Amino acid sequence: MQMDKIVYLNLLYDFYGELLTARQRGLFELYYRENLSLSEISGQTGISRQAVSGTLHKTERKLNGLETALGLAEQHAGNNEKIDLIISLVKEQGAGSGELIGMIEELR
Amino acid sequence: MQMDKIVYLNLLYDFYGELLTARQRGLFELYYRENLSLSEISGQTGISRQAVSGTLHKTERKLNGLETALGLAEQHAGNNEKIDLIISLVKEQGAGSGELIGMIEELR
Repeated sequence: MQMDKIVYLNLLYDFYGELLTARQRGLFELYYRENLSLSEISGQTGISRQAVSGTLHKTERKLNGLETALGLAEQHAGNNEKIDLIISLVKEQGAGSGELIGMIEELR
Repeated sequence: MQMDKIVYLNLLYDFYGELLTARQRGLFELYYRENLSLSEISGQTGISRQAVSGTLHKTERKLNGLETALGLAEQHAGNNEKIDLIISLVKEQGAGSGELIGMIEELR
């Protein structure tokens, strides 16, 4: 699987993991965070390899659907770009007290 | 119904409305935005008064559940407070060019 797909799904999971079922979360973490293979997950959980694969696909579709509806990951990336720009402007204008910069950083 | 409950549900709807079904959205808007009564909604849609009421209750639970899981409304309120504070600090430090303030406002 492509590395950037894994990174992206992990990002979506950070935003929307709370909306998944316990089973979806468990299998997602074994596969996408602990990098176990489908067979290893099947052996460890007693769920058939096919059912593990089916749940992972369903979970991916759910995460992508949530991002389409709510767009939190996209918004987050856009906000981070704006915050970078704001901090560089604040520093440029010589107003960059550590306290102020810290507060702006907290908006990330 | 209490006014603050209506305001709060409308806020949650702004954040999570995209995750509701078309029927849930439609009835929510007639009741909470257009302020029709259950009987009026029933007359207008042909859905029984009891079913309208049931769907509205289910929708409220869904919105509250989404806020419990994702906390977007709470986070938004917290961010707005931080942004108010940042803007007053920026102005105090004499770095308040209109461009900079505008960019910070955009983070709301």
